[in-house]
Amino acid sequence: MIHPQQPSGMPVAKYVPFQDQIPFALPDRTWPTRVIEQAPRWCAVDLRDGNQALIDPMSPDRKKRMFELLVRMGYKEIEVGFPSASQTDFDFVRMLIEDDMIPDDVTIQVLTQCRDHLVERTFDSIRGAKQAIVHFYNSTSILQRRVVFGLDQDGIVDIALQAARLCRKLEETIPDTTVYYEYSPESYTGTELEFAVRICNEVADVIDPTPDHKMIINLPATVEMATPNVYADSIEWMIRHLERRDSIVVSLHPHNDRGTGVAAAELGYLAGADRIEGCLFGNGERTGNVDLVTLGMNLFSQGIDPQIDFSDLDEIRRTVEHCNQLPVGERHPWGGDLVFTAFSGSHQDAIKKGFEDMERQVASSGKSINELVWGVPYLPIDPHDVGRSYEAVVRVNSQSGKGGVAYLLKAEHQLDLPRRLQIEFSGVVQAKTDSEGGEVSAAELWTIFQDEYLPAVDGAVNSWGRFTPVSHSLISEQGGVDKISASMLDNGQEVVIEGTGNGPIAAFVDALSTLGVDVRVLDYAEHALSAGGDARAAAYVECAVGDRVLWGVGLHSSIVKASLTAVLSAVNRAERIAPTE
Amino acid sequence: MIHPQQPSGMPVAKYVPFQDQIPFALPDRTWPTRVIEQAPRWCAVDLRDGNQALIDPMSPDRKKRMFELLVRMGYKEIEVGFPSASQTDFDFVRMLIEDDMIPDDVTIQVLTQCRDHLVERTFDSIRGAKQAIVHFYNSTSILQRRVVFGLDQDGIVDIALQAARLCRKLEETIPDTTVYYEYSPESYTGTELEFAVRICNEVADVIDPTPDHKMIINLPATVEMATPNVYADSIEWMIRHLERRDSIVVSLHPHNDRGTGVAAAELGYLAGADRIEGCLFGNGERTGNVDLVTLGMNLFSQGIDPQIDFSDLDEIRRTVEHCNQLPVGERHPWGGDLVFTAFSGSHQDAIKKGFEDMERQVASSGKSINELVWGVPYLPIDPHDVGRSYEAVVRVNSQSGKGGVAYLLKAEHQLDLPRRLQIEFSGVVQAKTDSEGGEVSAAELWTIFQDEYLPAVDGAVNSWGRFTPVSHSLISEQGGVDKISASMLDNGQEVVIEGTGNGPIAAFVDALSTLGVDVRVLDYAEHALSAGGDARAAAYVECAVGDRVLWGVGLHSSIVKASLTAVLSAVNRAERIAPTE
Repeated sequence: MIHPQQPSGMPVAKYVPFQDQIPFALPDRTWPTRVIEQAPRWCAVDLRDGNQALIDPMSPDRKKRMFELLVRMGYKEIEVGFPSASQTDFDFVRMLIEDDMIPDDVTIQVLTQCRDHLVERTFDSIRGAKQAIVHFYNSTSILQRRVVFGLDQDGIVDIALQAARLCRKLEETIPDTTVYYEYSPESYTGTELEFAVRICNEVADVIDPTPDHKMIINLPATVEMATPNVYADSIEWMIRHLERRDSIVVSLHPHNDRGTGVAAAELGYLAGADRIEGCLFGNGERTGNVDLVTLGMNLFSQGIDPQIDFSDLDEIRRTVEHCNQLPVGERHPWGGDLVFTAFSGSHQDAIKKGFEDMERQVASSGKSINELVWGVPYLPIDPHDVGRSYEAVVRVNSQSGKGGVAYLLKAEHQLDLPRRLQIEFSGVVQAKTDSEGGEVSAAELWTIFQDEYLPAVDGAVNSWGRFTPVSHSLISEQGGVDKISASMLDNGQEVVIEGTGNGPIAAFVDALSTLGVDVRVLDYAEHALSAGGDARAAAYVECAVGDRVLWGVGLHSSIVKASLTAVLSAVNRAERIAPTE
Repeated sequence: MIHPQQPSGMPVAKYVPFQDQIPFALPDRTWPTRVIEQAPRWCAVDLRDGNQALIDPMSPDRKKRMFELLVRMGYKEIEVGFPSASQTDFDFVRMLIEDDMIPDDVTIQVLTQCRDHLVERTFDSIRGAKQAIVHFYNSTSILQRRVVFGLDQDGIVDIALQAARLCRKLEETIPDTTVYYEYSPESYTGTELEFAVRICNEVADVIDPTPDHKMIINLPATVEMATPNVYADSIEWMIRHLERRDSIVVSLHPHNDRGTGVAAAELGYLAGADRIEGCLFGNGERTGNVDLVTLGMNLFSQGIDPQIDFSDLDEIRRTVEHCNQLPVGERHPWGGDLVFTAFSGSHQDAIKKGFEDMERQVASSGKSINELVWGVPYLPIDPHDVGRSYEAVVRVNSQSGKGGVAYLLKAEHQLDLPRRLQIEFSGVVQAKTDSEGGEVSAAELWTIFQDEYLPAVDGAVNSWGRFTPVSHSLISEQGGVDKISASMLDNGQEVVIEGTGNGPIAAFVDALSTLGVDVRVLDYAEHALSAGGDARAAAYVECAVGDRVLWGVGLHSSIVKASLTAVLSAVNRAERIAPTE
């Protein structure tokens, strides 16, 4: 018999199972027999829930880029801020309106707490918009009623109703704006369902929506507290008990504390919800909001149009990473670096056979690949549909069985190439393999890298490029000016050049200008190849040489020598490579 | 009316909904009414499925660390490799056995394809183990039968049965090892259920398990193809149709292609499975295996003992990151950097009130916090239970309302502190605030950082520490030896020291030794503060000064000066701070 697991010793007794906190039953649930057949109404809350959870909240420029991305992708409802809580958010909403940046078919949404002055400020923020959703919320959970508000159920209902009444009154002050409403019983997942439905129904009575002018009832998993089927049960229960169903849009807002936010959204949608709020790549408080990319791509992979354009997913990811200043993980569904990569030989073999089968079908049917049914093992979708290519996937894997260009250089040579250099070098490899055919081994890859970037060092005669570094001396003076004297071979002839600058690289660039070399440093990065002061360092320098932009690489035990060598690497490459057309 | 979403233009027609690929119905499903009440049997496959999906597969040392971690956490079944496919894996299994590294209550598991010579090699690998699980698999999906194997159902069954028969025969050759079996119909999620249950039943007939010596039937979501409720339905369906149920352990092996791997595991477990295979923090092919940390912590948060010790989750994370050479994301459930952090003011306020309520309860009841029911808004568990502290969570947020120490230095001063330096500096801040009370503003934080790490530069007289850098000259000779001559103030007196080394830092350390300063560089990192050769650089150096380990920081336009200043920063700190007891 296999030996049993043992108690962990962790303090489990302080936690109460969800079903003992919020008991309810729905034995006749119907959602598990349904399937998803069309996209929900989406609402992107990146600029509010996402932004408020950032280490470094978005600047106006980053906000603008995020807004434009969301519009371009096809989102029609975008929560753009919490204008009453933040002057930055208020100013951003005003800019969107006053600079006429909101397309006619896009509705902005603004969040507010249920406090009079905040509601008033919120209406001030949307004046002049063609239409807007005013999203008001208050917290309804058992825990928050007790420890945060010290109020009973009636007191909590009063907060919501007073805000609803004020909204209807303020609406009259901005007659040129069509106002829609969204109400959220915040911390819904910690709220008794009977109370949640009571407060929603009473709020709806005040807002008085109609089938032609619906209101949104949003049921947030503010904290995810149970398995996702329980959230779905609660949504189906709520929908059965909500009055005015034909005038109400039921919206979901799952967070991901238990790692099941995507499932909660999908099962809640099966349970009858109409709309889902989330963020691109799952940004948001703590573990994040539900990921709109995963939800949309999950639909796509089932042959359902997400009504959102994910065809350039890398560009979407880059923009999101820029705006959020948080990376998207390597294994993030659909968009991560590794999700279309197979490392195991048997997977690679099956993928190869799948591609061959697709090619045979294309040849025999005369159809394009997009007219056939996709079927390649271990690739749930055609990577091309999100802007990746078959070739890259196949070649990267076949090169070593273990990974791509950048990975090999990292794994075998400890070189951690900056992303733009990775892209540049991939092009170099691509050009070699296209001209010579076949696959590239790890050893061949390293030879290509050396040939392309690494000059012979320390005076060895070579035909690699114009300049070969020999030695240098550097004097750092009080006041921060460095003087360099560098000895090099220039087409085999020893020359000594001198220059000054604010650091050794700047001084060296200055010295090179005495030889008529026009080089500017755009970016650089260095890292040690292992620990210790004696370790070798790698330097990567992105240079504008004349009107070309090129990377150079230097490896040396001295970080200075590595940097200067990297500059020469870029300069030599520029002189060696014919300019592009 | 809010404007409708529009078609995306993406090629949806090439994908077939799951229910049209693998149709089955289970209208009388029972799993949605169940709740989880105890931990499943866990099997950690980090050393196999996880390892084979790594950019840089684990070295023997990293494998050993992963194995020891899994044992220490409490896993009793550990898949340790694919010994017939990899000599490294074979050698690792032999080492575990021959060096007697497997505790008596831990069972190793080894994977093999259903090919004679691979099965034979697999049995060779486990010879001498007290017990082992031989896990054999073959692919059964409609797609793989067609494009990879070109075989009908009978042909695929024959592959599995031949392997099963060979296993029973080879078992007799290692009588000192108790052999258990696991069979996986690989790509189960793409297999008709009737065929999946047929092949499992026929394999079980050959293996002939008993209630006292069960076999494992593992039903992998090799590729996640549908919403997680569908996986649960399929598991309940299979369990109803599997023969010899009392002799079979039903195991789940979900992947995460749709981002619902955790949900699939939980709902499949509700559907009657006994066992779950996964990896720590969800490593594994493509989007990864299901995350064992999230599954275990989800149980814990419901008051169910996971039978796995997560009480030092940061240490677990560090080891996993070291072994996998892949980072755990900031928002990863339970273990990410940001998951116990609240950025929004209203969340912080509610958390504060929750903590105050807990303290009142502790005071009034005389009980410890672990004897009370946990109830703090937005914190689904007590962070202390996984090795984080209340103080850190609250203080980090209240410092600025926008983030922690490291974030502020990054956001406001572009300093990207290495993680160990972040920890060191947090302790410095903690000590200041503990002694002076109250909260720390962003400006105060910067003052603390400057006071602690940044010496006045370029000869300005100051009382900050023993050494003040003035200027230096550096000569880099052919052959890679750097000579440095550095001018400094030593307690206000100008001194000039000289040294040589393999790079400027090594040369400077050598020069410092002439003053009797014993310093070794353990790690260093640099980055530019903005683009361009003229930009300022930040250098961080971790030094052993005598028997203390301390970080130093230097900021300068010259990367060399920044590095040398950082070394002096560490040396000065060592002389200034009294040694710890």
